[in-house]
Amino acid sequence: MIQPDPSPFLDACRRQPVSHTPVWFMRQAGRHLPEYRAVRGSGSILEAIARPELAAEITLQPVRRYGVDAAILYSDIVVPVHGAGFGVDIAPGVGPVVADPFRTAADLDRLPPFNADEHTPYVAETVRILAKELEVPLIGFAGAPFTVASYLIEGRPSKDYVLTKTLMYNDPLLWVALLDRLADYAIASLRSQVGAGASAVQVFDSWAGALAPDDYRRYVLPASTKVFAGVADLGVPRIHFGVTTGELLGLLAEAGADVVGVDWRVPLATAAERTGGRVALQGNLDPAAVGAGWEATEVKALEVLSAAADLSGHIFNLGHGVLPTTDPSVLSRLVELVHTTVHPSL
Amino acid sequence: MIQPDPSPFLDACRRQPVSHTPVWFMRQAGRHLPEYRAVRGSGSILEAIARPELAAEITLQPVRRYGVDAAILYSDIVVPVHGAGFGVDIAPGVGPVVADPFRTAADLDRLPPFNADEHTPYVAETVRILAKELEVPLIGFAGAPFTVASYLIEGRPSKDYVLTKTLMYNDPLLWVALLDRLADYAIASLRSQVGAGASAVQVFDSWAGALAPDDYRRYVLPASTKVFAGVADLGVPRIHFGVTTGELLGLLAEAGADVVGVDWRVPLATAAERTGGRVALQGNLDPAAVGAGWEATEVKALEVLSAAADLSGHIFNLGHGVLPTTDPSVLSRLVELVHTTVHPSL
Repeated sequence: MIQPDPSPFLDACRRQPVSHTPVWFMRQAGRHLPEYRAVRGSGSILEAIARPELAAEITLQPVRRYGVDAAILYSDIVVPVHGAGFGVDIAPGVGPVVADPFRTAADLDRLPPFNADEHTPYVAETVRILAKELEVPLIGFAGAPFTVASYLIEGRPSKDYVLTKTLMYNDPLLWVALLDRLADYAIASLRSQVGAGASAVQVFDSWAGALAPDDYRRYVLPASTKVFAGVADLGVPRIHFGVTTGELLGLLAEAGADVVGVDWRVPLATAAERTGGRVALQGNLDPAAVGAGWEATEVKALEVLSAAADLSGHIFNLGHGVLPTTDPSVLSRLVELVHTTVHPSL
Repeated sequence: MIQPDPSPFLDACRRQPVSHTPVWFMRQAGRHLPEYRAVRGSGSILEAIARPELAAEITLQPVRRYGVDAAILYSDIVVPVHGAGFGVDIAPGVGPVVADPFRTAADLDRLPPFNADEHTPYVAETVRILAKELEVPLIGFAGAPFTVASYLIEGRPSKDYVLTKTLMYNDPLLWVALLDRLADYAIASLRSQVGAGASAVQVFDSWAGALAPDDYRRYVLPASTKVFAGVADLGVPRIHFGVTTGELLGLLAEAGADVVGVDWRVPLATAAERTGGRVALQGNLDPAAVGAGWEATEVKALEVLSAAADLSGHIFNLGHGVLPTTDPSVLSRLVELVHTTVHPSL
């Protein structure tokens, strides 16, 4: 008798056989959902994240509506540095902004050793609420050292990362100290989330794709490797994600990930080659195809499922976050399509 | 007796032996130069482009200062659609903006057949002035159909191209008509520039890297191929450039380019593999490394030159445009470094 599959998501992360292809969406909890806009209010997102009942409700909304195979904590990658008092806010329509950006070694003092219970107690509290409520795994997450550093140094979202790279090239000792500190932040935050009930973790190095592979290897890989090693003993699947990372996919796996996220620019077969078939892959539908409506979504989703047929371990997702203009009914149909398309491993 | 090399730039484009590695910089004429800021004034860039004496002077400034091996016309990829009356402006600090974006087939009427002499007479006039003044080749240029279409449809610079892709997926007939029209614009503009004295052309598909390879092949390659075929008889080298195009490099070559531009994310050896060694390569120093100062520039430039040693045909350039905060003295030293590093083909 075939046992029921308690979590296709966790099984796919571990490259085990699954009863159907699991699916969730980055930014599945967010502005595209009317029920999100109804409860979110107009304050800073950081205020909403700091209210455990509200953050838990927002996390649950897409699970209820879509029947996705995993929830992802409603939070933000700057929450730990914000909680520790670095002075980060998230400006609506802009993103993370820092009034007094990171410039010198003295700024390291503004990043004291991170203590999740002390600096961001609301995060673990939200996770605890969710662990009781959810019937699917909860993904905890943290920002990778490079991407968090880029916000602290640039002071706002950047297109060219020239201040970040200037510090990286010109003051490698301070760079290493900063990334090492931020690795500790990520580890402590992830450990706290898993301790409170998260069943998997995703490390967002969203903007690492701005780096040439040699620079990634030299200046970023060590700190990211430390993050993955720092949560290895927890036994939960570890996902590593960024955009425009085509040339970095092998290195993202090498950092210690069990699952590597792939954006839509890279065919899944190519991503499998570059990661040496050693990891599960997550992705990689273009969010703009979903934004275009059901017809385009169906065509492109079937292409993704077809490309994934030969993979050992595939979690269906978008290549980046759900766009705010997305029609929720398209995502509902997409989940149904993914769940009912026969998975080749059966 | 060895003949002097009249243009290492043109020779490298044609994969002929060169006396030194040729070098020029995208956006070498621009805001990073004090002499540019002194003459540019505060009006729209489109007004400056429409003044041939001024546009020629701005084009010449970096040639005088840096001794680069090619000049690139001071213009913009939206100049033809602006000149034809579509209603495009370039907002300072923003980029191209369209008050009434392209939405339906009726908007095709706002793109009448392009006539360079009638719609943008100042462009050829600028080229004629430069052809008399310059001792190095002048690169003319045009926007590729996809990238120009993205501005007309989005109405402003975009991060996700959701409106563009929505039209592309949902109305493929209108999409093809629009891209075909824009291909005609590019061809007519490039032919006029070469007729007036440009010695090479670059087609900027700056944002094509937002597309998955399958989508690029299906929806974009035919129109871009038409552009390259439409100027093939002119006998001038044709360069094809975009950013985050790692997975598209083979297709950018397939469109008919003699030279493919490579951004810093892709090692030159990888780019050579993906283009099958059939084209010269241009690039690929990270502009942010130059922004970081001479020390980082020297290290990274030597890595580029070393990676290029095995290439048949290399034009040194940045992987994208010069950043406005760049110190001109760093670019001066960079040109000297490239010119004095012994080229392996000698």
